Amino acid sequence: MSHTKRTEIGTLTPGEDAPAPELRRDPISGRVVLIAPERSRRPGGFLTREERSFPADDPGDCPFCPGHEDRTPPEISAVRPSGSSPDGPGWRVRVIPNKYPALAPARQAPSSQSPPAPTVGAGPGLESRRFGDGAHEVVIETPRHDLETIDLPDDEAFLAWAAVRDRVLALETSGTHAYVQVFKNRGREAGASLRHPHTQIAALPVVPPRAAEELALFAAHAAREGGCLLCRHLAEEVASGERMVLRSGRFAVWAPFGSSFPFELRLAPLEHAPSFAFLSDTDGLDFAACLRLVLARFRSRLGDPDYNLVLQQTPAGGAAGQVFHWRLDILPMLIRTAGFEWGTGVHINPVAPEEAAAALRFNPA
Amino acid sequence: MSHTKRTEIGTLTPGEDAPAPELRRDPISGRVVLIAPERSRRPGGFLTREERSFPADDPGDCPFCPGHEDRTPPEISAVRPSGSSPDGPGWRVRVIPNKYPALAPARQAPSSQSPPAPTVGAGPGLESRRFGDGAHEVVIETPRHDLETIDLPDDEAFLAWAAVRDRVLALETSGTHAYVQVFKNRGREAGASLRHPHTQIAALPVVPPRAAEELALFAAHAAREGGCLLCRHLAEEVASGERMVLRSGRFAVWAPFGSSFPFELRLAPLEHAPSFAFLSDTDGLDFAACLRLVLARFRSRLGDPDYNLVLQQTPAGGAAGQVFHWRLDILPMLIRTAGFEWGTGVHINPVAPEEAAAALRFNPA
Repeated sequence: MSHTKRTEIGTLTPGEDAPAPELRRDPISGRVVLIAPERSRRPGGFLTREERSFPADDPGDCPFCPGHEDRTPPEISAVRPSGSSPDGPGWRVRVIPNKYPALAPARQAPSSQSPPAPTVGAGPGLESRRFGDGAHEVVIETPRHDLETIDLPDDEAFLAWAAVRDRVLALETSGTHAYVQVFKNRGREAGASLRHPHTQIAALPVVPPRAAEELALFAAHAAREGGCLLCRHLAEEVASGERMVLRSGRFAVWAPFGSSFPFELRLAPLEHAPSFAFLSDTDGLDFAACLRLVLARFRSRLGDPDYNLVLQQTPAGGAAGQVFHWRLDILPMLIRTAGFEWGTGVHINPVAPEEAAAALRFNPA
Repeated sequence: MSHTKRTEIGTLTPGEDAPAPELRRDPISGRVVLIAPERSRRPGGFLTREERSFPADDPGDCPFCPGHEDRTPPEISAVRPSGSSPDGPGWRVRVIPNKYPALAPARQAPSSQSPPAPTVGAGPGLESRRFGDGAHEVVIETPRHDLETIDLPDDEAFLAWAAVRDRVLALETSGTHAYVQVFKNRGREAGASLRHPHTQIAALPVVPPRAAEELALFAAHAAREGGCLLCRHLAEEVASGERMVLRSGRFAVWAPFGSSFPFELRLAPLEHAPSFAFLSDTDGLDFAACLRLVLARFRSRLGDPDYNLVLQQTPAGGAAGQVFHWRLDILPMLIRTAGFEWGTGVHINPVAPEEAAAALRFNPA
């Protein structure tokens, strides 16, 4: 697919022939997407900055701001000066249970409820269910309410990611969770309800469908050809350069062949590593620096869109072995998901990944 | 799961114990969801009416309004007085090609592009792609710009659905498409870019993943137990009544056991029918009436949310036989999809379907 000039973000030049729509299957996620450049001409297709704005909020009301520690459940861990008290001010990073958890420890299940079947899908009838026992935590990345993650120096940003890593490790080795999902919702359009920079960690009692599907792809590749699917794919992407955006010593960032969202990016370690839990501090600093560069690019080139960050990694417990290769999916929310996507499971993406990479690239090939 | 009082839409009474979170697998879609009532307490969790508002628009600029027929591609069909000219005013329903198509006839593929592999997933390398050849049409439901679908009398609403049905039949029997996806995006939050009431039809060259997954469930049920999965499920739902919302002579509306969205509903014919394409006029009138009742309920009880309608039916060409049972998924967009959902494939739904049904039910059990 040829690269295409755009008069503004993601919009084709009037009169220009759009490349034909293309169905692609992403080799890593296994998901099918529809790349449809003609759709980018649609008036109102991309969200305006006004539509993406956060509702007015008041730091005085923010439960994540220093001095309001009593508005959250007691902290799980924090980066704070030695001698300072838990749940008091002075912290630089703070980890708390989500006050409105989507998953909760099994002991909180009211005994008045009849216990659901132990596993999803295992019941004899048509309905199957189980308690959503697990954990749902929030990493408050900085005491500063109005400071964006990308405005933090790399070492401060890394502090938050190190806290995430340490909690992932603790949850994965607790023996009670099957999968740990890390994600960040930045801005209203990405599903956030609070502006104060934060990242979330959810521990699930089952391996969720997406991870299971990807793990099956990795296992099939290993059985068929030996080695890691993402290692091989990354080598191909680096060699072609067509979708590469950034390379550091340890990480690569590229636009996925089967991007579901316009300007979607992936960040992964160049060296094989199944889990984020074992990220070294050195690598972690590089990771934080790469991510900040890319998010700054979103700000300067895409009008500072809201975005989701989604970590994909191997299940807890080591049963899946070393076959998986972790990555971070970086998903700018510039368009809304609609009926076609809910119906088919196929996202319509009006910006070809090759074009997205060309618009965001740091190291021209 | 017990029914829970709410002080406002979907919000638990302060202090009330929330039921424990529950993972469910929907028996019809096969998808896993996380029902998490505690999440409904989260401030800002539900979109406000202001956030859901459409950008100001001017009927004078609307390409779907009568008198602006030259702003769309030439019409495919229309309900218009005999003797009136195609692409002129006077029509009551008008079907046109989407001006910004996500899928296009194969002949439009520029010959300068190297042809992609013929099927998604069939390539020998890691990347696989094919042209997105197909069709993308728009059914303009009424000449009235500001009139909502639900404000039309049933017979007028049926005119639009009959046009949809007739186009589905034409596309399915053309021999060039594998699947026809009907969907409606009502409002900005549901992905619409135009206010004027319209429904879309997309014809795909492959059976999309969701339909393929569901078809496999239906086929497995038929092989294992005989008969139709949805016929059996509907019988169970009608018998229990716990999630039923409405029954007419020919259709049932219920809250799916594994609802991905708060207040999600399903509408299906009580009698087995694989495809929407063969809906009789009598049944079509009843269908339109049921849908209008339900959407009016959304308006009166849920603050008139934006919504998606998604038709699920059997693939074109008859290869799948009679195993599938068509339905319409009705998806109110009251919350935003976020990082957890993109990462896991599991939607967090803060309103239990049993509670949604209790709030929307027409015929108290």
